Amino acid sequence: MAATKESPIIFYDLASQKNTPWSPNTYKTRLALIHKGLPFRVEYISYPDIAPLMKKLGAPPGSPNSSKFPYTVPVIADPSPEPEGKPIYVSDSWEIAQYLERTYPPPQYPTLFPYGAIAANRAMATVLGRTAYNALADLAIALIGTNHVLDERGHEYFMRTREEMFGKPLVEVVKEEEPKWSTEIRSAWATAGKLLDANGPMDQVGPFVMGKHISNADFLIAGLVLWLRCGEGSEGHRWKELLEWDGGRWGEIWKAVEEMETRSTEV
Amino acid sequence: MAATKESPIIFYDLASQKNTPWSPNTYKTRLALIHKGLPFRVEYISYPDIAPLMKKLGAPPGSPNSSKFPYTVPVIADPSPEPEGKPIYVSDSWEIAQYLERTYPPPQYPTLFPYGAIAANRAMATVLGRTAYNALADLAIALIGTNHVLDERGHEYFMRTREEMFGKPLVEVVKEEEPKWSTEIRSAWATAGKLLDANGPMDQVGPFVMGKHISNADFLIAGLVLWLRCGEGSEGHRWKELLEWDGGRWGEIWKAVEEMETRSTEV
Repeated sequence: MAATKESPIIFYDLASQKNTPWSPNTYKTRLALIHKGLPFRVEYISYPDIAPLMKKLGAPPGSPNSSKFPYTVPVIADPSPEPEGKPIYVSDSWEIAQYLERTYPPPQYPTLFPYGAIAANRAMATVLGRTAYNALADLAIALIGTNHVLDERGHEYFMRTREEMFGKPLVEVVKEEEPKWSTEIRSAWATAGKLLDANGPMDQVGPFVMGKHISNADFLIAGLVLWLRCGEGSEGHRWKELLEWDGGRWGEIWKAVEEMETRSTEV
Repeated sequence: MAATKESPIIFYDLASQKNTPWSPNTYKTRLALIHKGLPFRVEYISYPDIAPLMKKLGAPPGSPNSSKFPYTVPVIADPSPEPEGKPIYVSDSWEIAQYLERTYPPPQYPTLFPYGAIAANRAMATVLGRTAYNALADLAIALIGTNHVLDERGHEYFMRTREEMFGKPLVEVVKEEEPKWSTEIRSAWATAGKLLDANGPMDQVGPFVMGKHISNADFLIAGLVLWLRCGEGSEGHRWKELLEWDGGRWGEIWKAVEEMETRSTEV
């Protein structure tokens, strides 16, 4: 039995002041659900509530090897195929993507992994992680904190744990990252862009990681754009500049994702 | 004008005692030429002759940013489209693969990059490099040296430069690597194997990096098998064990490459 509007997939996302998406990791799952056309309902959780709730639900830890934060979101609860059965809980965006592809397979449902090239898509995500994600992460985290994007309890938890992680106030991190925007950060994205240029001219082969077809690896890029946009606010200059970088590739991916959001399957 | 049997592509490979392939980097190019069905003739070069020859030919350096060894093989010389024209020299296995795919494109010539997923194929090679290649490299280099695989001048050069690189005799390196075979090395290959398992059951989706279709990234794996096999000799136990690892995936890839070699386009 597939998820329906009446019995949708429950998607556990991170709370924010307005309860709208902001986290790059959970956004990958949101987009995977929309792309697959699966009805879902979002439950926003405040950071300190993740571990207690997931333990109560019996959901598996998303980072079982982490001693500090084994329980993470995204988590999904897929309705049981049996009428009164317990839902199937899946944690971690990569595990969720694989689960969705197996459970709601192509061609009946749109594919997250064109040509069945799942391993290559994952390798692409790894490489994008080491370039685009790593370069942007400190700035995005610091902006999310200093601009108070999260709900009150989540904000307090986020500031405390992230300032401990950095060993300094997040406002300091923003200052340190400022001069890196047009140098290290841009250069790391250019490395990713140059790799994608190997596919051929964008206007002929498409702007996406796998060429003409949007795929799971593109959702990582979209998550980074969203992260920065939420961190600096929709009037910020950086996220708009980023859309223009590398021949406008990131803008093309973001445009496709915005269009997907207009067809959202959120109920 | 395409390469012909009468006017084949010249493929510059590394000399060995028997002048048979042994280098993982050049083997990728050999297999790309065979897979594309392009007639080629091999010129074996001794290590110390690479830089002088490539400068004389006017071939570009394969590692332009390396201060020590800017000139590398593989290099190919593709016959000029003009009757008396200078051949087109291309260096570096990744540059060569892209050049061949552009110059001898599918569907007329078999593709090196199924589905046009060039960037994803490259990302896969990067990930395989960080796992399978990195884990095996020290052992393979040390075996190639201690077992005197290369021609005399190449051997002297190889021993000198590699022992300087390691800061110790290669015979020491072989000893140090011995206990790692069933631990670190096997574990790194298992990481690569687990990533490829994401494609689905091998008997249904195929054993290759991109599933059913062999591609450029598989040639990297084949190069590693060849490297180890030449290093320890064809009666060695390690390369045979490796073919059995990870559900026999590496053995399946090697089998396909051995079959390709029976259809070699070498002239």
